[in-house]
Amino acid sequence: MDIQIGRGKTARRAYGIDEIALVPSGRTLDPSLADTKWRIGNIEREIPIIASAMDSVVDVRMAVRLSQLGALGVLNLEGIQTRYADPEPILNKIASVGKDEFVSLMQQLYAEPIKQELIEQRIQEIKQQGGIAAVSATPAAASKYGAVVAQAGADLFFVQATVVSTAHLSPESIVPLDLAEFCRSMPIPVVLGNCVTYEVTLNLMKAGAAAVMVGIGPGAACTSRGVLGVGVPQASAIADCAAARDDYHQETGNYVPVIADGGLITGGDICKCIACGADGVMIGSPFARCAEAPGRRYHWGMATPSPVLPRGTRISVGTTGTLEQILTGPAALDDGTHNLLGALKTSMGTLGAKNIKEMQQVEVVIAPSLLTEGKVYQKAQQLGMGK
Amino acid sequence: MDIQIGRGKTARRAYGIDEIALVPSGRTLDPSLADTKWRIGNIEREIPIIASAMDSVVDVRMAVRLSQLGALGVLNLEGIQTRYADPEPILNKIASVGKDEFVSLMQQLYAEPIKQELIEQRIQEIKQQGGIAAVSATPAAASKYGAVVAQAGADLFFVQATVVSTAHLSPESIVPLDLAEFCRSMPIPVVLGNCVTYEVTLNLMKAGAAAVMVGIGPGAACTSRGVLGVGVPQASAIADCAAARDDYHQETGNYVPVIADGGLITGGDICKCIACGADGVMIGSPFARCAEAPGRRYHWGMATPSPVLPRGTRISVGTTGTLEQILTGPAALDDGTHNLLGALKTSMGTLGAKNIKEMQQVEVVIAPSLLTEGKVYQKAQQLGMGK
Amino acid sequence: MDIQIGRGKTARRAYGIDEIALVPSGRTLDPSLADTKWRIGNIEREIPIIASAMDSVVDVRMAVRLSQLGALGVLNLEGIQTRYADPEPILNKIASVGKDEFVSLMQQLYAEPIKQELIEQRIQEIKQQGGIAAVSATPAAASKYGAVVAQAGADLFFVQATVVSTAHLSPESIVPLDLAEFCRSMPIPVVLGNCVTYEVTLNLMKAGAAAVMVGIGPGAACTSRGVLGVGVPQASAIADCAAARDDYHQETGNYVPVIADGGLITGGDICKCIACGADGVMIGSPFARCAEAPGRRYHWGMATPSPVLPRGTRISVGTTGTLEQILTGPAALDDGTHNLLGALKTSMGTLGAKNIKEMQQVEVVIAPSLLTEGKVYQKAQQLGMGK
Amino acid sequence: MDIQIGRGKTARRAYGIDEIALVPSGRTLDPSLADTKWRIGNIEREIPIIASAMDSVVDVRMAVRLSQLGALGVLNLEGIQTRYADPEPILNKIASVGKDEFVSLMQQLYAEPIKQELIEQRIQEIKQQGGIAAVSATPAAASKYGAVVAQAGADLFFVQATVVSTAHLSPESIVPLDLAEFCRSMPIPVVLGNCVTYEVTLNLMKAGAAAVMVGIGPGAACTSRGVLGVGVPQASAIADCAAARDDYHQETGNYVPVIADGGLITGGDICKCIACGADGVMIGSPFARCAEAPGRRYHWGMATPSPVLPRGTRISVGTTGTLEQILTGPAALDDGTHNLLGALKTSMGTLGAKNIKEMQQVEVVIAPSLLTEGKVYQKAQQLGMGK
Repeated sequence: MDIQIGRGKTARRAYGIDEIALVPSGRTLDPSLADTKWRIGNIEREIPIIASAMDSVVDVRMAVRLSQLGALGVLNLEGIQTRYADPEPILNKIASVGKDEFVSLMQQLYAEPIKQELIEQRIQEIKQQGGIAAVSATPAAASKYGAVVAQAGADLFFVQATVVSTAHLSPESIVPLDLAEFCRSMPIPVVLGNCVTYEVTLNLMKAGAAAVMVGIGPGAACTSRGVLGVGVPQASAIADCAAARDDYHQETGNYVPVIADGGLITGGDICKCIACGADGVMIGSPFARCAEAPGRRYHWGMATPSPVLPRGTRISVGTTGTLEQILTGPAALDDGTHNLLGALKTSMGTLGAKNIKEMQQVEVVIAPSLLTEGKVYQKAQQLGMGK
Repeated sequence: MDIQIGRGKTARRAYGIDEIALVPSGRTLDPSLADTKWRIGNIEREIPIIASAMDSVVDVRMAVRLSQLGALGVLNLEGIQTRYADPEPILNKIASVGKDEFVSLMQQLYAEPIKQELIEQRIQEIKQQGGIAAVSATPAAASKYGAVVAQAGADLFFVQATVVSTAHLSPESIVPLDLAEFCRSMPIPVVLGNCVTYEVTLNLMKAGAAAVMVGIGPGAACTSRGVLGVGVPQASAIADCAAARDDYHQETGNYVPVIADGGLITGGDICKCIACGADGVMIGSPFARCAEAPGRRYHWGMATPSPVLPRGTRISVGTTGTLEQILTGPAALDDGTHNLLGALKTSMGTLGAKNIKEMQQVEVVIAPSLLTEGKVYQKAQQLGMGK
Repeated sequence: MDIQIGRGKTARRAYGIDEIALVPSGRTLDPSLADTKWRIGNIEREIPIIASAMDSVVDVRMAVRLSQLGALGVLNLEGIQTRYADPEPILNKIASVGKDEFVSLMQQLYAEPIKQELIEQRIQEIKQQGGIAAVSATPAAASKYGAVVAQAGADLFFVQATVVSTAHLSPESIVPLDLAEFCRSMPIPVVLGNCVTYEVTLNLMKAGAAAVMVGIGPGAACTSRGVLGVGVPQASAIADCAAARDDYHQETGNYVPVIADGGLITGGDICKCIACGADGVMIGSPFARCAEAPGRRYHWGMATPSPVLPRGTRISVGTTGTLEQILTGPAALDDGTHNLLGALKTSMGTLGAKNIKEMQQVEVVIAPSLLTEGKVYQKAQQLGMGK
Repeated sequence: MDIQIGRGKTARRAYGIDEIALVPSGRTLDPSLADTKWRIGNIEREIPIIASAMDSVVDVRMAVRLSQLGALGVLNLEGIQTRYADPEPILNKIASVGKDEFVSLMQQLYAEPIKQELIEQRIQEIKQQGGIAAVSATPAAASKYGAVVAQAGADLFFVQATVVSTAHLSPESIVPLDLAEFCRSMPIPVVLGNCVTYEVTLNLMKAGAAAVMVGIGPGAACTSRGVLGVGVPQASAIADCAAARDDYHQETGNYVPVIADGGLITGGDICKCIACGADGVMIGSPFARCAEAPGRRYHWGMATPSPVLPRGTRISVGTTGTLEQILTGPAALDDGTHNLLGALKTSMGTLGAKNIKEMQQVEVVIAPSLLTEGKVYQKAQQLGMGK
């Protein structure tokens, strides 16, 4: 349904996660019967939640702990962990500066070169402690370090940029990464993203993606929409990309999961992404709030260190509990940021969905959680400002 | 009218109480001519307002007083009142802790077992003082204590869960409550809820419900939408469920009232629910603000004590007047939270509705009370921030 | 275009003044060429702005001054001015109490009976100083004091209630005011209101109204929507009632002006009401901000003193200039609250409208002034909070 | 698609820049390949960004510096620079007064007459330092000083009013400026504006405009919408005017660029304007924040000094960096207000647009950046208010 913005331009209305809610059907389910298992590449996991490849979220210890708890964490190969043999003082430094010094500090710290031996070392540290070694790089770094990563024993490779396409134009001096060629050449599954459309999802799957990351712009620490004007609200983006997955599956028999990435904060957000069609989600800020997180109560976007156009930001997220509390509970907070797995299972029970596949089919309603006058009144009460 | 969220997903737009307003017709009425009587089970009441089965809202004294004033209060059978012989020190404790200790205190206090003799005692206390004994339990507790409740002389039994259905799947070790069987077995009327759809309302009525509770997610002390992503805005939910009631009535001759539950704060909210088709409303936070309320200026959700996934919250509501002032006036506040019955009668007069049935037919207009710039300006003035 | 709220209920979308903006055409006009004259009853005025019949806005002095400046002020016959021979200490008292004492003080002050001799005296005071004596009463008071008002020499009689209809049901003990009979019996023009629909406007015109007041709920000091749930956004209400005026005019040759009442704050608001079809506007809070206003920097709704269901509120509006500055300039403020006539003429010039009739035809666009993130950023800058 | 506001009035929905976002296609581009060149009159520029003709934004030094960096600045011929031989103490004065004194100070300072010799002097100062001399005047001043401006060697003349039309009615004593005649008579290109509709754009192009300015109401320092009720959201206005440009081009072979003016703050805003069809943008507040800006950390609208109806306002914008940082980077801020050219190139790369023409064709999605509850939560976190 195209809407006319003006004589020269039409557009469609896209919906965000905040604009929808889930509708119970005629069946309910005991949460213990809800099966949240899913599969990415050749790896099966109990929990369809991945921790983002961000320096404030995943280090070796977090990757190992997430694996043990049934989830997954992705290590950023172009961050602090592979530029510094001892990342601890660097992370302390980042947490210590004021808002005004932050961007220039980041630009300086990330000017330190990436070391190939540190890439190998981090992957081996994760493997030695029994974790799943999932790592992430931009297309440029992927082409440079792909072989090293595979040889070091990594299990999954995420090739992620703000926006990827299978048709990237570069200056003649630069040979762009051929994603299809790269996927073929790698002995381990390669996840590709991010994208927001049916067409690009289909292209990435044809190029050999083991999973496709969906989401541009919505992250808590991301300012892409402000800086670039680019972004598609997540509910619509997920639904479109999930449709591509289903068509690709029907055509080829290959089921390539679609992972919603960015802007998710509560258990409810995760449930809504899956209800729009996602197989799993990638989250950053909720994990940045755990006691084990390398961010030390802070969270920042991975585009922040750009020397010319930083477009992430640092936010103070605080620490609210352990990783276990946040991921599998029991919850000590009542706002949906603890026990994310419990929230998903309870939501599935409430909605009568036995597994992720059924959860993707639940009824969705457009119900904007706008700040109406009534809501402001309620909020004021919740904040203890009632008369 | 289905709207496309994305290729793989359509949804309908649902409306909340904040998004509608009521339109006067060509007739007006003296408020004294507005008849607000309604009937639930075999009980007739002057005022179509029920106090929620929440520990901060209804105890024995409140139930009795509400009965005397022409309304109704429901006692929670799984709360403080049936776990502790003397609830007063417990309620004092809840009111005394800080925000950070609240959730864990609740988890601890509600770990105390429910006592059958206290269930009997509370019901008898209400009856002895001339009140209507309406009590509430979750399906699990209902199957356990149903017989006791009936024998103790209760008048009405509310079986309430966040979401109920007549098709609940449980692990093999647990026998789920068969709602139809339960209604048949109980010698007193059984009210069932909550639900938000036409189909489930119809199923609950067929199962023998004496009334159906409508509303998932909107309560002031409820965080279901954030934690689970689940919820349907009240105006749409009520209209759908009221349509089921009318169809069921036409088919069977049985008129089963539909009660809007959750998120209602002002007299205007109550009027709008009835205009969408509700026969009565259940409210919590407005009563939590009366001097007699057991919450001692606080209000909290009944899902809060969950040991693994708390999803209610405690809000400070303060005390603004007596129960009588809040329910039947005269009002000492001008914001719609005092004299709820007077507001309903005046609204009916303004709209020319002689009784609840006519009030259900008044014209509704979609008129979002969004926070526009002008509204913010007005609000600033009301808060004394005018230049 | 009916929208389905739920199975049992449809509604139309109505629009508020905040949701529209005016579109320039291919012609512009020097503001000096914009003719703002209009006619109410047999009185021609240069400025289509009427000051509300509120105790904080119009007393004898204001009525006289407004007449001199080319506008009109309406004196409330059921307020302070006709209950107290010397209103000054009473108004001082109202301005001196805190927010918590306000409602009960109002209930007490307005318990003092209305004096017929004061009604006569106020009308004569206005006439003696050369002002236009326009007065206002509710239907009940109108039937009681109508003859007195006419005899005292008043020029215009406003019969105003929150909602009026020509079909009012009363208890048998009370004879309701027959509006048609009343208009016939009065020797001076009678203005009737408020209403919000085509049908009621038509009925009021048939009953003999000299003008019809449009607007329920939107006033700055009015809480009808919160208390009663009743209200229709002004842009839609005005357009509907203006359509009734045009149809009535075509049928009978009688042109009965339609006056937008409530919620207007800036010059832009006034322009938009006329563009939706209004012939004039009634405003309260903008005049309450002038140095001459009886409210002494405060403004309150006329439903506030209700002994059982107060539903106006007192707001602090401050004093920003003289009545002349606010009405005809020159402006000392740049926010649209000074020089309302200049704003109207400049807007008409910008839009190429030579007179009110042409201004009613200008193009309108739906352009919600919602609080988007960008707007909040702008506002923050305007408030001096830019980085 | 006309929407009914009420029986007497229909309107179309118009969209603002805050309500849209840009959608990546199947192609991406290295930002270094994005060509941002454009042409206005006979001047080619690397950067499609013009600094507004506002006293807080452009003086001689800024005009020269902007030219050197590949952009353009327009000097206001009716401001401080042409009224005072030494503007520095005047600008210091404006920056020193409090909010309450500001409007009256402006009314007083702008009462000083414009001096013809200062017009000549400023133009020559810009030319002597190698800058492009683009100047601006209202229609009245344009007719008075047009010849002087051309003779002094200016390169571009902007004739700008809040709203222009080719059919302006004036009192008989005044001869209005005939825009077509003026364009013919001037030896240098004349840019005309502002307008918001297809028809007026076409008329201005037929009158000989070298470019057309688009935008009424949206500026950060502009209060036209509040004061006059007039305004059309930018996305819709640009799309309509761009359609006129394309039709005019097809008919006549003349390509007359369309420039979006007002309310743009971030790089993303600029990208979105071009995606709606603009060839370039004019911005004020982003440049007022540079260290070289004459506004000294403040920014104010050019309608502010009006002696009878001021309708701009002064906002505190602070200083965040050098002009170079803001225009071409590298950025020291991550919020989209630094390195505007870098943001445009990166956005074009992300969207696969090789040049401005392709950027005008990218897919747009309606995605309101409304303040939802989730957004407020995110914002709170960004402000360091996370729990």
